[in-house]
Amino acid sequence: MTSANTSSLRIAGDRLWSSLMEMAEIGKTARGGCNRQALTDEDKQGRDLFVAWCEAAGCTVSADAMGNLFARRAGIDNSLPPIICGSHLDTQPTGGKFDGVYGVLAGLEVIHALNDHGVQTRHPFEVVCWTNEEGARFSPAMLGSGVWAGAFDLEYGHNRTDKEGKTVQQELQRIGYLGAVECRPRPLRAAFEAHIEQGPILEQEGIRIGIVNGVQAIGWYDLIIQGVPCHAGTTPMEVRRDPFMALYGILDKLYQLADDYKPWARMTFGDIRAEPGARNTVPERLLVTVDMRHPDRRQLGNMEQAMQAIVSNECGKFGLDWEIKQEFDAPAISFDQDCINAVRNAADALGYSSKEMVSGAGHDSVYVSGVAPTSMIFIPCEGGLSHNEAENTGKEDVEAGCNVLLHAMLGIDAG
Amino acid sequence: MTSANTSSLRIAGDRLWSSLMEMAEIGKTARGGCNRQALTDEDKQGRDLFVAWCEAAGCTVSADAMGNLFARRAGIDNSLPPIICGSHLDTQPTGGKFDGVYGVLAGLEVIHALNDHGVQTRHPFEVVCWTNEEGARFSPAMLGSGVWAGAFDLEYGHNRTDKEGKTVQQELQRIGYLGAVECRPRPLRAAFEAHIEQGPILEQEGIRIGIVNGVQAIGWYDLIIQGVPCHAGTTPMEVRRDPFMALYGILDKLYQLADDYKPWARMTFGDIRAEPGARNTVPERLLVTVDMRHPDRRQLGNMEQAMQAIVSNECGKFGLDWEIKQEFDAPAISFDQDCINAVRNAADALGYSSKEMVSGAGHDSVYVSGVAPTSMIFIPCEGGLSHNEAENTGKEDVEAGCNVLLHAMLGIDAG
Repeated sequence: MTSANTSSLRIAGDRLWSSLMEMAEIGKTARGGCNRQALTDEDKQGRDLFVAWCEAAGCTVSADAMGNLFARRAGIDNSLPPIICGSHLDTQPTGGKFDGVYGVLAGLEVIHALNDHGVQTRHPFEVVCWTNEEGARFSPAMLGSGVWAGAFDLEYGHNRTDKEGKTVQQELQRIGYLGAVECRPRPLRAAFEAHIEQGPILEQEGIRIGIVNGVQAIGWYDLIIQGVPCHAGTTPMEVRRDPFMALYGILDKLYQLADDYKPWARMTFGDIRAEPGARNTVPERLLVTVDMRHPDRRQLGNMEQAMQAIVSNECGKFGLDWEIKQEFDAPAISFDQDCINAVRNAADALGYSSKEMVSGAGHDSVYVSGVAPTSMIFIPCEGGLSHNEAENTGKEDVEAGCNVLLHAMLGIDAG
Repeated sequence: MTSANTSSLRIAGDRLWSSLMEMAEIGKTARGGCNRQALTDEDKQGRDLFVAWCEAAGCTVSADAMGNLFARRAGIDNSLPPIICGSHLDTQPTGGKFDGVYGVLAGLEVIHALNDHGVQTRHPFEVVCWTNEEGARFSPAMLGSGVWAGAFDLEYGHNRTDKEGKTVQQELQRIGYLGAVECRPRPLRAAFEAHIEQGPILEQEGIRIGIVNGVQAIGWYDLIIQGVPCHAGTTPMEVRRDPFMALYGILDKLYQLADDYKPWARMTFGDIRAEPGARNTVPERLLVTVDMRHPDRRQLGNMEQAMQAIVSNECGKFGLDWEIKQEFDAPAISFDQDCINAVRNAADALGYSSKEMVSGAGHDSVYVSGVAPTSMIFIPCEGGLSHNEAENTGKEDVEAGCNVLLHAMLGIDAG
């Protein structure tokens, strides 16, 4: 059988589900989640298991200089660029069983399905496992795919350290995954990544498949409100220059701003610190992180301008100085139209409900999309919960996403 | 001369100012302040200098089991209970030259003035230096006066530890100030404490002397707002349970509450923490400290009730759980009417402008007032700044406060 006549091919989700549960045993936590952080002993065990499964499925596995793993199933014409799929096996410290892992093992299940039905593809198919996507142990996130795609150089990637000062290179060496293959892009026919949505939209709307057409633009800012510290007991309210007095108006109006740009704008204050942070002293300084997202970078730019005006106005009311420092600026990503179409066609042919959506989170596909035609497939996620030990998704959704992945890859292969 | 005919006695502030500047050399900081934390080598040097000065002035100095120092100038009738004055020599890590030190050295200047003019008082006069008022090295604050007055027992006082685990007892022993005298109240005729205001009221109103009639009631609370953590990118705004969404209404309405109880109510948010505190995650939890003060404990109780209602209401709007834990509850203190009158009479007789006021801060006099008739004398403080290396006050104010202290003590002695 070749990819041209595989339209009736279906994956039953049982084997994929079993492999997800078996992988989840490695680093499993008391509350039913996973702690399998990048380049730990647990990550090594997870990688060893993945490599053993791939080799049993007849793949050739190679590791590159960042420990990214590529499991290759030969095609009819191995001079053609491969069609790849995959994601990551590392987790958050209190992560779940599906984030990343699903994309890797769904890729392996695609290989199994092709083997089971004796399908020969034109292009080689590869399943990739990217190193340190989470950024939980080594900052930044998406490090393996980032170095591979040229966003960071190899030296930078190797020299990232964890909290104990251990480097990526040392830890790759220690667990035996410092590969000989150069970490840089090769020509790819297409790249797909199946992933849980990590949000509640598909579940709430009762939709099975998210056809991901891009990733939101992300702006990270440090907002600093500068006051004058004074004694909590002796200083009358009306003479204080108290950063908290400006904070409430800023929060109120920034949430309104997100509402003005709904439904896709996101506004998150993830962290806050008061300095000196003494219970009986008006703070000298408040530091608030702002995470602002919008699918359209120009709209995000408009939101940034509005934020400046809001902060200036609210701080002005109380005689407070302020500063906004941009810490991170990720442009909006638009995925490849052919890959998006391949996902839509697969979902339609399989009879799954679907909708086009933007990813609010970053993924390895962000970097991959810079050097290869790329798209993603989302499946629902219970309660929208992710980066959480309770992360869950349905067996039917797991199966559906894998069938879409299979047929999107076959569609590109046949096209 | 006896205290009955001392009405023309005046202190010139020069010697007092010089002694303040000399003491400020010990532990002086680059930005012109002092770091002379309790029971450090610097505190020992400061105590040694104070003791030398007192002995040179003919006083008998004793240390009690908490290292509180009492410098006694005999009276005509030494069976009478002494009239005491004083404060503390320890400072904040980035403290100033006047907080506490002024009250101790003004007391010494009173002794000098009596000596200079050959005044014999009926009661013995004593100058006291209390241990660890600031609470910066050992928690809680006002530890020496607290143990002395029976608010804490001696074992508790001795076992307080600094960040390195060193105890008060060890450090008293090490610097040679673990005294033999029992640390407990003796009968006192009266107790006075001269102090910088640590707030801006006297300066702003152009008034020389604050006649302190009591100390505000203080409530310390931990406010906890409980949300549901979720991903900053993938979670639509309208399904979030984000503690920051309740925070802005709470801040707004609590500041309004302070305004409803003006001019004496104080409302301070000194510290705040987000958990887990990740830039791209809606916090699971916000922890905010609330410091609320009012001169009338019943009014503070009303404010507490209003706070509960505000927090409940604002959290209810966003489906958030909350908790308010009371961490500290200091009742309002009313000082002794005779001592207050003695301060007022002294200020009036000396021709200084004055006003009755409540102290917004705690002082050693809070504990002393529980076992002896007590009042305090405030002098202005530049810009209201204290607990700050830039803490400053005028030489004329220093002189005025010391004259009021002298004549308040003589007034009680004569009465």
